This record gives sequence, structure tokens and C-alpha cells, in this order.
Amino acid sequence: MLSAILSSPSSSSTSTFPLRYSSPSSLTNLSSLPLTIGCRRTSKKSTHNNCSIRVQASSGMIEKETPETERPHTFLRESDEGSSGDESSKPNSVRARFEKMIREVQDSVCAALEDVDGGGKFKEDVWSRPGGGGGISRVLQDGDVFEKAGVNVSVVYGVMPPEAYRAARPVDNGNTKPGPIPFFAAGVSSVIHPKNPFAPTVHFNYRYFETDAPKDTPGAPRQWWFGGGTDLTPAYIFEEDVKHFHSVQKGACDKFDASFYPRFKKWCDDYFYIKHRDERRGLGGIFFDDLNDYDQEMLLSFSTECANSVIPAYIPIIEKRKDTPFTDEHKAWQQLRRGRYVEFNLVYDRGTTFGLKTGGRIESILVSLPLSARWEYDHQPVEGSEEWKLLDACINPKEWIC
Amino acid sequence: MLSAILSSPSSSSTSTFPLRYSSPSSLTNLSSLPLTIGCRRTSKKSTHNNCSIRVQASSGMIEKETPETERPHTFLRESDEGSSGDESSKPNSVRARFEKMIREVQDSVCAALEDVDGGGKFKEDVWSRPGGGGGISRVLQDGDVFEKAGVNVSVVYGVMPPEAYRAARPVDNGNTKPGPIPFFAAGVSSVIHPKNPFAPTVHFNYRYFETDAPKDTPGAPRQWWFGGGTDLTPAYIFEEDVKHFHSVQKGACDKFDASFYPRFKKWCDDYFYIKHRDERRGLGGIFFDDLNDYDQEMLLSFSTECANSVIPAYIPIIEKRKDTPFTDEHKAWQQLRRGRYVEFNLVYDRGTTFGLKTGGRIESILVSLPLSARWEYDHQPVEGSEEWKLLDACINPKEWIC
Repeated sequence: MLSAILSSPSSSSTSTFPLRYSSPSSLTNLSSLPLTIGCRRTSKKSTHNNCSIRVQASSGMIEKETPETERPHTFLRESDEGSSGDESSKPNSVRARFEKMIREVQDSVCAALEDVDGGGKFKEDVWSRPGGGGGISRVLQDGDVFEKAGVNVSVVYGVMPPEAYRAARPVDNGNTKPGPIPFFAAGVSSVIHPKNPFAPTVHFNYRYFETDAPKDTPGAPRQWWFGGGTDLTPAYIFEEDVKHFHSVQKGACDKFDASFYPRFKKWCDDYFYIKHRDERRGLGGIFFDDLNDYDQEMLLSFSTECANSVIPAYIPIIEKRKDTPFTDEHKAWQQLRRGRYVEFNLVYDRGTTFGLKTGGRIESILVSLPLSARWEYDHQPVEGSEEWKLLDACINPKEWIC
Repeated sequence: MLSAILSSPSSSSTSTFPLRYSSPSSLTNLSSLPLTIGCRRTSKKSTHNNCSIRVQASSGMIEKETPETERPHTFLRESDEGSSGDESSKPNSVRARFEKMIREVQDSVCAALEDVDGGGKFKEDVWSRPGGGGGISRVLQDGDVFEKAGVNVSVVYGVMPPEAYRAARPVDNGNTKPGPIPFFAAGVSSVIHPKNPFAPTVHFNYRYFETDAPKDTPGAPRQWWFGGGTDLTPAYIFEEDVKHFHSVQKGACDKFDASFYPRFKKWCDDYFYIKHRDERRGLGGIFFDDLNDYDQEMLLSFSTECANSVIPAYIPIIEKRKDTPFTDEHKAWQQLRRGRYVEFNLVYDRGTTFGLKTGGRIESILVSLPLSARWEYDHQPVEGSEEWKLLDACINPKEWIC
């Protein structure tokens, strides 16, 4: 299970999978599960690149990241591509189609960002694990338009402790103890920080999770679910931008269920909450997790629709704001808000905090942090100012679409 | 107990008091104790300054911070200054002398920093609580030499849950349940970030803690202990600077016990450890906590000696490095190391993380964060470079004094 974390590309990413099983407050319980994870430099002179990641579950599984020079056509295990009787092993399985989708999204988003940037290019890191799975991290840093943009995909085969498998409980007669349960996880995750203080930051993440049916617990089913979201974090409010962004999210949601947008909009406001500031990180969007109480095909289509909505939701805003003239004061305010972004990600974001604690690929996890951030003592925006309006909207989430 | 946190001025500050009672891993247990803490804006338009802090312990105690226009001559309760039979209530009590010491240290350190800076001046915030206690926060921001320097003192009267009082256990016969135990805490805490990338950051914190004897548990004694430390975080190593710094720490220690420096030097290396990077925040110094197995007067003198050693340990280094010419690359590396500082303080520092979770005075807690910080994807210093040497010393702590 923890290996889902290890290859987690970014904040609130695939790393949130394990939380399906437990409330956020029981994170420490998860950490103390019978899994040991090591991420140690092998020599005194070695650097981050030499960090090897091993996962040792109660099953004895050990996985180690291997850098790859080329992208494989799939990170799925061969058995998943074959034609065994197992549904998940077919080439048109949900896991296969989800991987195809997130890799296409990674390609199209990176292409769109490079296109808007004009100068910056994405640097790519590819890795795999011997037992299957792997990931592609892409980062564009210090471009003409973007300060830092990370777009990562990962596919993980892991093993979760049986205690974490909810579905096993109802048929547990107290005599049989199911063994560790294999799981599959895949996700795309991205944080994009532009340079211009009037151009907003965006974050999106879409993920799919599947477990095998526990072998020793007859009747306990295979489990699956979807999670994800897209949210906007401006330093200044342009109401037309925020409305456009939320409208695109709503449009994607409404194609599937009229209840989705209001429900996932509120979920987003609740999730990206900086408790010690009593304010949200930004102006929200949509967020959902543990979604499996709808048709699986419908949710695959829904996730695909959401992921494909990132470009139409975000790129027009960037096109409009990337060259807006700004002052040092505007930049300083953006940097202060970046500080809040850092606070949320390091203190609250489940994927980040869990990933850090369990020894995930640090550079992939922390690619969500901005290139630069700022903390001024007791900064108070002047009431009624543009900075104050943004802060007010972070404190009191608004309905952007009437 | 939590009110110790609430007025905690900074990282690894007085906030670490409660941890006397529990291992770091049981922080969440502390959070779930029967205390409720509220830090809410009172109106939609209010800002941080209006954040009121209330502590509601099982005893029903409610404390609220009140801004003060003048510094009181003491934050001790009147009873502590009187001449009742209670030892702690005498004017020459340890708590009274400790408060006097930390306020003198605050004055002298601030004067020395303003003197070196030449331009920047400290801004002061004073607050008190109706039931006694209070604090003085001083921040110098964007000076000529210092990017951000915070020097805070605080005095706290709180109540800790009986479950947290170790000394009560041996005489607990299982029939009597002791009530909440009043405690007293006082500390000085400071983080100083200079502008010049060759001038190091310093952090120091000295604190004293006392409990009353539990009334309902005959034989359970009054408890007290000392904690603190001073540590250096450069972006570049000047061996003579680091040796000077450690020599002053060793000199202070050796006046009291030859075992102190080696023991507290290692404790410091162990405490300021960024686990997910497998590196220390900086080049260490001394750190100790829970110290009560020596004569109380001796430890008061030792804490005083350590606190008074900050100026001779640090100011000569700043004088030497504040005007060293530097390039954009030097500055960028300093900013990257500032990013590590942020990571340590937000992810690991007990005082900061606990303070954030329990609703402390945010601006005082986060004054430890630098004015600006930076995160580059997968930055790797060139082997053998000055940046690499610093990183290597953070990964492999050295003995600076042979």
C-alpha cells in the first residue's frame, strides 16, 4: 500500500489512496503498519539521485525504483495486458484505459504549457519498478511564463495490510485472517505556478485505485474507486477568470450528474483549508475522493472529462494574464500567497505529508512547491484593497456561478 | 498545558514543554486531550489581528490574549511576587529570576542586532492574559543586514491534564483521580536570518517549566525542568566561523559539566534532522530538553550562561560576513537552504507543528520562517563545490572542535 505513496508524483495525488481506509487523524496508524521503507544515501558522497527506495511489506515484497532512459509504452504488468480470464488483465480493462488516459493528459497538458510559455521546455524523468509500475515526472522550471510546472503520472502495484481492507470485514468470521491484499493505483498529478502575479496557480490530480479480491476471505469482493480534482489559486481575483474556471468544472460535472458540481465544489473548499490561518489555499474548483457508488464506466468517463477540462479551464486565463504589467508590490503579494501554498502542502496535504513521512520520491512529491515563496511578519492587507479581496474570498468561500 | 503552546514565540520554543510528557509520536494524543481551542475571526472582514485565542481546559479555564500598549515590569502573577510560604511565590524564585533573565537576553540581543544592522529597527508586540502571563514579540524585518529577525519572550500559566503528569503515576492507587495540574512556563526564542548568503542563520531558545504539586495525589511532587539550545545554519561553510560558534557553545557548557557539550551537540544534530532529505537543517550547536537531573540553581546558571553566549557566538561572525560580495548564484543557494529551513520547521519542529495544530498565535509561531525561500526541482550541487560541501556537512555531521 505504501508504494502507492512512494511513486506519488505530487500533492494530494495518488498518495491519498491509502486514506480511503482511514480518517486523516489516523495517519500515524498507517505509518506504524508492518511496512518498512528505506530511503538512504548509499555513500557519504552520494546525492539525491542515488536515493534508493525500498518497500518491504509483510509479504516480503521489495521494490526499488530504477531510472529508465525511455518511456515504456505501458507501466502495466504483462499479465495485465494479456488475455487471462481475469477482467483486470484485459487490454481494455479499466486500469489499462485509465493509464492510457492519464498519459495522454500528461502529453496534452505539457504541450499546451510549452506552447503558452514559448521558451521553457519540460525536463523528463522516467522510472520503473521491477515488479511492475513506474512513472514519468515532467518539470518545466523558470520558463518565460511559468515559474515552475510539474506534470507527473505514476502507476503502482502494491500490497496493503489486510487490516486496511474494509470489504474484508463483513465476511470475516474471526477465524480466518486474510493475507496482504495486492492493489493497483494510477494517477496524474500537476501543479502549475506562473510568474505573473495576475496569472493564477492551478493544481489537478486524477487517480484510480483497484484491489484484488482477498484470496483467504471468500466473498470479499475486488474493490475500486476514483478520486481527483482541479483547483485554482490566484493572488488576485479577476471575477471573469474565476467564473470561467468554475464554469468549465461545472460543465464537466453536469454532463454526468447535476449533484456533482455543488458537492465536489464544497468538498474542494473543505479540503484545501489552512486551518491555522482559517483560510483556504485558493478559490477552489472541484475535489472528490473514494468515489465508487456510481457505474465504473461512468466514473472513468467522468474522470477523463475532468482531466481533459484542465486545458480549456486554465489556458485561456493564462493567455489573458501572462503579460499583464505588475509592480514589485504585486509580486510580493503573490510571493506571500505562495508561502500559504507551502504551508498547506507541507502541513495539511495528505499526499505530501504522508509521502514525506514514508520516504517517497522527495523531488516528485515536492515539485508542487513554488520556485519561491515569502513570509512577512503579521502582514495585513488594507481593507478594501485587491489583496484584501483575495484574502476575504479565501476566508469566506463564494459561489462563483449563480 | 496547551496554553504553553499558544503563546509560544517560535520554533522549538516553549512549545516543546508539553512534550516532556510524551514522545513525539504521541503528539496526536496530546491534541485529542479534553481541551478545546478556538482561533476564529470574529467577523467576515476581520484580519489576523482580530484572531482571539481561547483555551478551554477540563478545569473550565479560558484565557484570551489581550494586546498591551506597554511592557509590564513582569508577566508573573501577583501571588508569584508576594511572600507567601510557597517557594515559587517568592520574588527570588526560579520562575522570577528566569523571567528576568530572558527579558534581559531579549533586550541585549535586540540591541546587538540593531547595532550590527545599522538601519533596521525592531517592531514590538506586547500581549497579556487576564489570568497571568503574556509575551513580548520583537521582529526586525528587511533591515540592512538582516532579512528577518524575531526575538520573543513569553510567560505562560496553564493547566495540564493529569494523564500527562508523570510524577503522579507512582502514587496513583487507582482510586483517586488527580485533577488538572497547573503549570508555569517561560522562554525566550529567536530565529535570525541575515541577507548576505555568507552570513549564517542562527536560532536559540531557552525555557523553564514548573508544575504545581497535584493536590489530590499526596506525595506527588512539584516538577521542574529546563530546555533549550543554540544552533547555526549557514548556506556556506567558513570553517573558522563554525569552529568559533561551537567553541563558544562548548565554553558555556564546560563551565558546568564536561559531559554537556558532547551530549548536547549530538542531541542538536539529532533534533534538527530533516528526515525526508536525510540531512540536518544546518551545522548544529547545542540542544537539550527535560533537564532536571542536576541542581536547579546550577541549571538556571547554565541556561543563563548559554543564553548570554548567543551574542559572542554569533555577532562576530555576522560582522565578518555581512558585507561579503556575492553573486545571484550564491543568493539562490541560500534561498534553497531557506527552503529546507521551512521544510524542517513546518514538517518536524515540535513547537511549530503543535502550535499550528492547536491554534497558537500564528504570527509569533511562524516568525521563524525566512522572509523568502526557494524550491528548485532536483537541484544537485556539483561534487566538490562549496554548495556540495555544505550539503555534505548537513548529511554527515562533523565534530568541529578536535
